Amino acid sequence: MAAGDPSPAVVPKEYEEEDDMLKGEEAFKTTKVPPWRKQITLRSLVTSFVLSIVFNFIVCKLNLTTGVIPSLNVAAGLLGFAVLKSYTALLSKFGLLKQPFTRQENTVIQTCVVASSGIAFSGGTASYILGMSPYIAAQGGAAQNTPINTKTISLGWMFGFLFAVSFVGLFSIVPLRKMMILKYKLTYPSGTATALLINSFHTPKGAKLAKKQVSLLFKSFCGSFLFAFFQWFFATADECGFSSFPTFGLQAYKQKFYFDFSSTYVGVGMICPHIINISLLIGSIISWGILWPLIEQKKGIWYSTDLPASSLHGLQGYKVFVAIAMILGDGIYHCVSMLTQTGCSLVAQFTKKKVSYSPQGRDSDTENEDNDDKIRKDYFLKDQIPMWVAGTGYVVLAVVSIISVSHIFPQLKWYHILVAYLIAPVLAFCNAYGCGLTDWSLASNYGKIAILIFSGWVGLDKGGVIAGLASCGVMMSIVSTASDLMQDFKTGYLTLASPRSMFFSQVIGTAMGCFATPLVFWFFYKAYTIGDPDGSYPAPFGQVYRGISLLGVEGFSSLPKNCLKLAIIFFFLAILINIIHDLLARYETKYKIHRFIPNAMSMAIPFYLGGYFAIDMCIGSLILYLWERKNKQKAKDFGPALASGLICGESLWGIPAAILALAGVRAPICMKFLSAPVNGKVQAFLDGAR
Amino acid sequence: MAAGDPSPAVVPKEYEEEDDMLKGEEAFKTTKVPPWRKQITLRSLVTSFVLSIVFNFIVCKLNLTTGVIPSLNVAAGLLGFAVLKSYTALLSKFGLLKQPFTRQENTVIQTCVVASSGIAFSGGTASYILGMSPYIAAQGGAAQNTPINTKTISLGWMFGFLFAVSFVGLFSIVPLRKMMILKYKLTYPSGTATALLINSFHTPKGAKLAKKQVSLLFKSFCGSFLFAFFQWFFATADECGFSSFPTFGLQAYKQKFYFDFSSTYVGVGMICPHIINISLLIGSIISWGILWPLIEQKKGIWYSTDLPASSLHGLQGYKVFVAIAMILGDGIYHCVSMLTQTGCSLVAQFTKKKVSYSPQGRDSDTENEDNDDKIRKDYFLKDQIPMWVAGTGYVVLAVVSIISVSHIFPQLKWYHILVAYLIAPVLAFCNAYGCGLTDWSLASNYGKIAILIFSGWVGLDKGGVIAGLASCGVMMSIVSTASDLMQDFKTGYLTLASPRSMFFSQVIGTAMGCFATPLVFWFFYKAYTIGDPDGSYPAPFGQVYRGISLLGVEGFSSLPKNCLKLAIIFFFLAILINIIHDLLARYETKYKIHRFIPNAMSMAIPFYLGGYFAIDMCIGSLILYLWERKNKQKAKDFGPALASGLICGESLWGIPAAILALAGVRAPICMKFLSAPVNGKVQAFLDGAR
Repeated sequence: MAAGDPSPAVVPKEYEEEDDMLKGEEAFKTTKVPPWRKQITLRSLVTSFVLSIVFNFIVCKLNLTTGVIPSLNVAAGLLGFAVLKSYTALLSKFGLLKQPFTRQENTVIQTCVVASSGIAFSGGTASYILGMSPYIAAQGGAAQNTPINTKTISLGWMFGFLFAVSFVGLFSIVPLRKMMILKYKLTYPSGTATALLINSFHTPKGAKLAKKQVSLLFKSFCGSFLFAFFQWFFATADECGFSSFPTFGLQAYKQKFYFDFSSTYVGVGMICPHIINISLLIGSIISWGILWPLIEQKKGIWYSTDLPASSLHGLQGYKVFVAIAMILGDGIYHCVSMLTQTGCSLVAQFTKKKVSYSPQGRDSDTENEDNDDKIRKDYFLKDQIPMWVAGTGYVVLAVVSIISVSHIFPQLKWYHILVAYLIAPVLAFCNAYGCGLTDWSLASNYGKIAILIFSGWVGLDKGGVIAGLASCGVMMSIVSTASDLMQDFKTGYLTLASPRSMFFSQVIGTAMGCFATPLVFWFFYKAYTIGDPDGSYPAPFGQVYRGISLLGVEGFSSLPKNCLKLAIIFFFLAILINIIHDLLARYETKYKIHRFIPNAMSMAIPFYLGGYFAIDMCIGSLILYLWERKNKQKAKDFGPALASGLICGESLWGIPAAILALAGVRAPICMKFLSAPVNGKVQAFLDGAR
Repeated sequence: MAAGDPSPAVVPKEYEEEDDMLKGEEAFKTTKVPPWRKQITLRSLVTSFVLSIVFNFIVCKLNLTTGVIPSLNVAAGLLGFAVLKSYTALLSKFGLLKQPFTRQENTVIQTCVVASSGIAFSGGTASYILGMSPYIAAQGGAAQNTPINTKTISLGWMFGFLFAVSFVGLFSIVPLRKMMILKYKLTYPSGTATALLINSFHTPKGAKLAKKQVSLLFKSFCGSFLFAFFQWFFATADECGFSSFPTFGLQAYKQKFYFDFSSTYVGVGMICPHIINISLLIGSIISWGILWPLIEQKKGIWYSTDLPASSLHGLQGYKVFVAIAMILGDGIYHCVSMLTQTGCSLVAQFTKKKVSYSPQGRDSDTENEDNDDKIRKDYFLKDQIPMWVAGTGYVVLAVVSIISVSHIFPQLKWYHILVAYLIAPVLAFCNAYGCGLTDWSLASNYGKIAILIFSGWVGLDKGGVIAGLASCGVMMSIVSTASDLMQDFKTGYLTLASPRSMFFSQVIGTAMGCFATPLVFWFFYKAYTIGDPDGSYPAPFGQVYRGISLLGVEGFSSLPKNCLKLAIIFFFLAILINIIHDLLARYETKYKIHRFIPNAMSMAIPFYLGGYFAIDMCIGSLILYLWERKNKQKAKDFGPALASGLICGESLWGIPAAILALAGVRAPICMKFLSAPVNGKVQAFLDGAR
């Protein structure tokens, strides 16, 4: 799954342990597995295409608002199943059904949709590509706001760039699939969960549950959509409507603490683990509750009073760079930790010891699953992808990419990109391996490190900012698609889908993503101002990624006073938090205190954005918590469906809302919040005007 | 139960038919019935006092907002039981319990609380007393706004008046109790339901259910209270806050169609029958949706353009008098119909036929209840109230009342009041008898007819308006307390509570009511402007009752053009609707179409107020309907508890809100709703002011 920046590809735990529902392959004894060409059917591709457009919209909207992307696996799985199941049920009613709906076909849809919406994230339209735009550049200092360090966003080069860089990754580690899946038996929690979900759909009990889940998803979708529609009427201008509701008072609102009635983020909060939501809240309290008000008191001392509010040399600079410091600290810790783990694990493998360390505690299958393993292994080995295909593919695509990317971004020379493609497979392997162990894809972290390296290498005068951001795209795409593909292989392994059909559906999904992502982004980009910190679409990572690039080219000189000190403190704080977490996780197993250690990355996001979406998400957490207390099983079964509906409904209202905005249709009412004295003045003004 | 003007004393049906829970008196075989002096305990009186204050607040708030009072029997029953049960459980834990909590004691509390909150309604603080105030008078024409036709409201004379008139009724029909309860076996649905509710509390299964109901009531109480508290912050001035939320757009808001987020009326809607809520909605659509906009187009033709909005000679006049016409039409139909029914039924009784007509269909007990009947009869006949006590009581109290009322209202001469007291017992008997048959107390209808008669008799120059309103109070008190008392006798009969303890608890409850009602009203009266049609407390019946009085003194001359025609149409429409309803009810029993005939009285209320509370109530109906569809039994068991909590919570927030208003504390925020163009102007104004 295309994991959002902050949270790993989180999948509800229930699907990992539904052993009562699914006694392995026994349940499917009588079902024939179709050959791989029959797994990729026209109907599955059409379904995938429709769903991938839908999910692209959702991910794009999430990207542009907060950048927090929850796992939409369950929603994609449920919807894919629901669409094809109803289609085949309809056909079979009229006696027209030729080919039954198989779980392999279901896996193909899932893979396609997830690959496509993965591009919506790793395509960086809201992060590295947005960071190139003159609008974001204008919010920084004058030194970097030069033509060579900005690039006006246009649809043409976005298509070119995405198509050039997105497919390379698929070929980078294909040959290693047998090692990772069969030999190392890596868990890939998300991939496994998806497989179990799909398998469960195709058992009678699972299908019945799925039907109920789809019904709830649909209801919550409608509710969320209608509520968003209702909200629209009251938001005729900025600072109007439910999204500016000062739930905790006007003072708290000024410091971005309020509930903004976004059902999307309530749903996101229901999917993300409690600790992520709490971390967001803690982060927003530390930053907007304590730190920024304190720094604001130093206005005129630490930074000039004349600066516009969005200038990176003023308060905004502290927000951006302290957040970057924390994100980088967390990212670097994870990279180092994962490389170490990967190394240790590989050493252990090669010295023929059994893999004994696995954070998930599900290192190897137990004996009674031996038979299942055998069946799965047979199918997994049936359709091969020759080594030479992978090798040739990688080289050819890399050459195409080098030529086209250096053409699109003259700031990035061919040798820069070549270097990137030489080290990428190693990082791709590390990421795929780490993801198999921990479910945590570090693609965006590798991308950030690439920004630092390449922007510094190219230098400010030669367009280092753009070069850094572009190289981030190159790196992120490879690393992210590689681990996604390996997840899908695991899913395929467990659903007896052929590796070849997995590979091709990943390719098709990626193509769909490369087609849909720029279009969807363009749609929002034309309808709204993207990247305005106070607007509806602040797209925080645009500013953050550009900020990282600035650090690479300008070093620390660009930071306002004391910002470096603060940034260093938070950089090490992030590392410290991670060390404490990991030490506790390993050595304190009695109370499992590590579960209560907040997540550094999550803490950093509200540093820039404020706490409003953290409050939404905590409300989601609270709802799920109360539900779990009332009826654990029901909450487990239906929580993700409810949450997915909430997310999809409001997000898809974004389409008509954007169309209305493009057409210049304004809402009729403004719900405004005025303090009592201001209201007195306004009322007097209105009475006078009558 | 003190039935509100529009709806009869509605009691949820479930308590009428819980036969599986309660096999008559068998369940209480082992429980001893205490003597009547031990039924009225100190603890029950203290509990009653506290609850009667609480319910006085609730009824007063409802009176002052819309005048729609739902049956609060269930809430009173649950709370009374919960308080004393927890108290006795606590005592018994420490071994201090001397006397167990009996259902007779429970009945005493119920009687007390219901009698007391009955005064809050029949005391007329929001109807005939408010109608005397100069503020309401000023909204009418100049002719009637003279000192002799107004009376400034003060605490002193309200106490005097209430104490003088409220007890007479108790003695008026006491001697007839045996006839009505034992001989005619009248059903008194509310009284029966209350008895069954109390009986069920004192069975183990019922106590368990009651505990859950109380828990839900408490939760919804807290939710409703906190939501009202939250709403307060956003309503710093008029036209601010949730109560002016233009849910269906600004145009609909202007025509009073909006959801005002009042959990009280959502709860009221859950208690009132669906058809009442629908009738309210139909009424508001006919009036505010069609009729008033049409009449407003005739501004300058039918009525002068110079009039203030609240003048009865303008549009407001149409609203008030058309509503009055419909209310009177409905009331007169019911009076005539009830007198006919009573007459027929009595004739049937005296000719020794069995009572065969009963609208509720529960005319007589079946044979297998004979044993229960015997036990109940024994207890009912044990404690007598001698005939001479009742007779002397009535005469003495009537004399006291004649002297004091004619002193308080010099406009009303002693012979007027004497006439009232001569005809009152007949009407009291009719009402008590009709109420026993149909559960519909017509007290306020008799009161309205009294207004017409006495105001016309006294005449405008001699203060006929005040005389009419005061006589309404005299008449309503007698008629209403008489039927309440008979209801309570029925409750006592079914719970084996002594008639004597019933009588005394009714007396005590009435005293509590006479004490609490003026105080509570005074509290609101000082904190807010009561009777402002556009304010938070429009108290519609103040204007309506005064309007009836004006009709009595001025005839139809005071009405604006064509208003009389309209009024006559709606007067007969109300009668027609009732005739259709009754004919269908009697002759069309297959589809029971009569259930879908709207209620004329309910249709009339929104004529004056607008549809906002009808929308609240329909939402309540909808919630209950969906709940019933999902789980009929649960909805039956817990609907009334949820609704009561919603009503009590928001209503009791009225106390701190009024205290804050008295102390001059204003809410900090105004949630304002502006149209897009106005918002543009306001924003420009605010930006300029910065």
